[in-house]
Amino acid sequence: MGTAWKRTHYCGMISTNEEGQEVTLMGWVQRRRDHGGLIFVDLRDREGIVQVVFNPQHSQEAFAVAGEVRGEYVLAVRGVVSRRPPGTENPRIKTGQVEVLATEAEILNPSLNPPFPIDDVEVDEAVRLRYRYLDLRRTRMYRNLVLRHRLAKATRDFLDRKGFIEVETPFLIKTTPEGARDFLVPSRLHPGKFYVLPQSPQLFKQILMVAGFDRYFQIVRCFRDEDLRADRQPEFTQIDMEMSFVDQEDVLQLVEELMAYLMERVMGVSVKTPFPRLTYAQAMARYGSDKPDLRFGMEIADITEAFQHPQARVISEAMAAGGVVRAIHARQAAHLTRREVEELASVVQSAGGKGLIPLYITSDGARSPLGRAITAEEVERIRERLGAQDGDLILIVADEPEKASELLGQVRLELARRLGMIPRDTYAFAWVVEFPMFEWSEEEKKLVAKHHPFTSPMDEDLPYLESDPLRVRAKAYDLILNGVELGGGSIRIHRAELQARVFKALGISEEQAQRKFGFLLEAFQYGAPPHGGIALGFDRLVMLLCGEETIRDVIAFPKTQSGMDLMIGAPSEVEERQLREVHIRVDQRAG
Amino acid sequence: MGTAWKRTHYCGMISTNEEGQEVTLMGWVQRRRDHGGLIFVDLRDREGIVQVVFNPQHSQEAFAVAGEVRGEYVLAVRGVVSRRPPGTENPRIKTGQVEVLATEAEILNPSLNPPFPIDDVEVDEAVRLRYRYLDLRRTRMYRNLVLRHRLAKATRDFLDRKGFIEVETPFLIKTTPEGARDFLVPSRLHPGKFYVLPQSPQLFKQILMVAGFDRYFQIVRCFRDEDLRADRQPEFTQIDMEMSFVDQEDVLQLVEELMAYLMERVMGVSVKTPFPRLTYAQAMARYGSDKPDLRFGMEIADITEAFQHPQARVISEAMAAGGVVRAIHARQAAHLTRREVEELASVVQSAGGKGLIPLYITSDGARSPLGRAITAEEVERIRERLGAQDGDLILIVADEPEKASELLGQVRLELARRLGMIPRDTYAFAWVVEFPMFEWSEEEKKLVAKHHPFTSPMDEDLPYLESDPLRVRAKAYDLILNGVELGGGSIRIHRAELQARVFKALGISEEQAQRKFGFLLEAFQYGAPPHGGIALGFDRLVMLLCGEETIRDVIAFPKTQSGMDLMIGAPSEVEERQLREVHIRVDQRAG
Repeated sequence: MGTAWKRTHYCGMISTNEEGQEVTLMGWVQRRRDHGGLIFVDLRDREGIVQVVFNPQHSQEAFAVAGEVRGEYVLAVRGVVSRRPPGTENPRIKTGQVEVLATEAEILNPSLNPPFPIDDVEVDEAVRLRYRYLDLRRTRMYRNLVLRHRLAKATRDFLDRKGFIEVETPFLIKTTPEGARDFLVPSRLHPGKFYVLPQSPQLFKQILMVAGFDRYFQIVRCFRDEDLRADRQPEFTQIDMEMSFVDQEDVLQLVEELMAYLMERVMGVSVKTPFPRLTYAQAMARYGSDKPDLRFGMEIADITEAFQHPQARVISEAMAAGGVVRAIHARQAAHLTRREVEELASVVQSAGGKGLIPLYITSDGARSPLGRAITAEEVERIRERLGAQDGDLILIVADEPEKASELLGQVRLELARRLGMIPRDTYAFAWVVEFPMFEWSEEEKKLVAKHHPFTSPMDEDLPYLESDPLRVRAKAYDLILNGVELGGGSIRIHRAELQARVFKALGISEEQAQRKFGFLLEAFQYGAPPHGGIALGFDRLVMLLCGEETIRDVIAFPKTQSGMDLMIGAPSEVEERQLREVHIRVDQRAG
Repeated sequence: MGTAWKRTHYCGMISTNEEGQEVTLMGWVQRRRDHGGLIFVDLRDREGIVQVVFNPQHSQEAFAVAGEVRGEYVLAVRGVVSRRPPGTENPRIKTGQVEVLATEAEILNPSLNPPFPIDDVEVDEAVRLRYRYLDLRRTRMYRNLVLRHRLAKATRDFLDRKGFIEVETPFLIKTTPEGARDFLVPSRLHPGKFYVLPQSPQLFKQILMVAGFDRYFQIVRCFRDEDLRADRQPEFTQIDMEMSFVDQEDVLQLVEELMAYLMERVMGVSVKTPFPRLTYAQAMARYGSDKPDLRFGMEIADITEAFQHPQARVISEAMAAGGVVRAIHARQAAHLTRREVEELASVVQSAGGKGLIPLYITSDGARSPLGRAITAEEVERIRERLGAQDGDLILIVADEPEKASELLGQVRLELARRLGMIPRDTYAFAWVVEFPMFEWSEEEKKLVAKHHPFTSPMDEDLPYLESDPLRVRAKAYDLILNGVELGGGSIRIHRAELQARVFKALGISEEQAQRKFGFLLEAFQYGAPPHGGIALGFDRLVMLLCGEETIRDVIAFPKTQSGMDLMIGAPSEVEERQLREVHIRVDQRAG
């Protein structure tokens, strides 16, 4: 680039304000059109596109340059901003009122013909990831990553103002034999020993509370070597926070304020606080999920009482086994075809349910595959309980209580999608609180911590810690947005005697506890303050706010489901020397 | 913690403004003193210390609690802020005018007796790192990490305002068989393949320029598995930046503005821009270093011309071999003892120099170990050349030009320290520019890139790329602060034909280039803009601004020289299962 060239404006920022001014632009050729004696070039940079007109009467040289350019060439242009002739304005782009009449031009770099056009057409994801540098030129991807930047920036602005200190915690840490699978990093200086990459900075943030930092946060990369089912990445980013001398309500309020700030500041959307708070039991009963989507209603209702002497066998058997009858009430959905209802039923079946009973409410009573096995009195009681009207559809499951709700929870989501009940650009935040402290692991045949073993039980449930541990609820909370778990946290145990009781309930011996968490337990003996915190999945938050379906579309250089980076070709083989230096060799035994 | 307790103030923020108010404080017991009927507790939190007075006449219960506490207990206190009785004020602390008369108190957590006191006494570093949570309670460490947070925050504020977008680049990437040693991460899903941790996001930031991001930055962790000589850490943080459509001057100005902003905003210090710019050749000649410390003068001067027919053998031999005579001129330093001068001479010898000739300027001429071998005429010419006065000391080295300056560069630093010439709290920024593009590697017997092979040569030196490559200077620049290299960068090559010429000069075949940098070279074919950037060592910047001697004191959880985390005990052994899962085994062959 000659020193004579110095950009004065972004292409996408040229407007009638610059009319008559000379500007210098640099960007990529989006499109070139030859119109007889004139050449039109749409020149693109990150801020947008502007039309440049090359007229041989203005400059022969520039016109000649324009004749050579092809799509994605990098071009520097000098010219004068002019209003477009009446009738040629383009209202679809920001700069559509103006054009730049070129007086000088230089090709800064040519380009091969790109494998796909740089606009928002559908392209196979493998190709997009292989040529990520071209994919990222597309408006949507650029906009997503700018939104990501703005959200991170606003998070830091907010937390800084609230007295939080961002502290960088280490990436080369120590394995703890619980939780998900670690990524290993062999040590060269210590043969046979390994670092691991952190699954979260959990232990370090608690250590920082012991160190008196009082309010810590970090936007930080974390690593989990999990099978990449669903929408997971081996490396992901979280907003990690911890506060001292707080109770649950303090954490919830702070996070609500943060979310409201981000929504207002970055999205220009105002959200109401406090967010709805559902206990785990309520969420499970009413939405069949611990991450309820509150963008629409259609809650699960219990209609067991409608059945006093049920004749339908599927209902009577479930009730006899201590089960319940629960239902989703879809207003004015009786138009759903039999095929559509069967598809909903297959959701239930593939989730291990026995079946789904549709009940169409009509002016002459009700219609269902069970026919008269559901009596008119039962229908009447159901109508009354649910407030159902003619034309409504009721979907019924009879099963044990948790199962019934879980199955209907899935039906509820699928049905809402089909009925178009889920509003766009709506942001329904919610808290789920009072999670069970423990759950029974069929695999390990013992109690395991639902959150982690440092989570504090609720004060009122402490008496049941030994006698009825499954009854104990924890000071744990999850933040939900639009049915997606954004993250979770808890108030931690800070006193040794309570920690010992919880370890005992989990069947963790003192020796095991020392081996697994020794340094944290030791730290806690030197004056640990009461503390609690939360970790929020930043990729998911950005995804939801971008309106994307996968976190890969809000990560600059994501990996595929099989953990590959298609652009750089990672992972790859390394040299034998590199392995020898870190004292390992490849071992192809089945893993 | 009972729900009745809710902190109202930080201990360190209580002042006469709160006089008469009831406050609730939570913190750590710094000190407890029993004074007959009263107990005084210095209560500490991150903001400072306040004195709490327990008087049994105010509250028997609180007094009893105070009787139980020991150092580092966590305590909640409610009480009324009161002015201290006249004569008992403590001007050394912020809260020294007031005390809190306790009405209620609760021990939130007891503490073992800490292994070292929580104040700024000297403690063995291994012990500090082992109990980092206690070490971080000390004012100095907390202050360092807060400054680190503020610098990161201000960097983001500034760059965001300048239109830079922070983009997160991946941590699990691909090895490139150049540069320092990589940390390896074995892949579970791809047996026998490995990710590596990034030594820097260099390739990704250049890819982002190809993608049209225009202005990128990131404050990002990087990894180098190097021997930890000097003050290095296996993981370190850098401020990484890249800009499109810029020349060197644009990058330098932007970074100067950033530094001036950080100094003003975080340190309250105003620094002048532009920073002094020295070519590599100037820096080497005048300071004997490519990272000159400009906090003081005492530049190296060439005094070869003073010796026309030298009699001193050490000088005549050096000159006969094409060498030079150079000197440091220390004003009024003739008081240095022979022993001190010998110590300076040993600096020269241990750096491979032949010797250091001191010349004491006195009212009767000059004195030196060479006696009359340095003639009166030579002394006179030296005095004239340097403007030396009676009482000055001149330190002379005769050697080949680069060597002479390098040796004197070290003498200059050591001498300045001894003479107390280095002012405290002074921040001398400088740029070193026009680095050589290549250097000769004795080891590899070929030219290697001094910066990296994507660095652009200077336009005016392009004609020498093939004929005289060692003469070619690069568009590369280093930022220096107080004699420490804060970081460096360059304008990159963006055109394929120039890249090919540079590869050729480096003896890199096209096949090798493809294998090593294939994806970047491919990306560059699709319209790479002119671009350049810089990476600044954030740990070092924070260290210098904190006035610390080691980066370990500005990193929350650093590793030792042998790469160990003494608190958590990393690296450590892992389970056989974990190795099997990632298809490796330990191999104790000598690495």
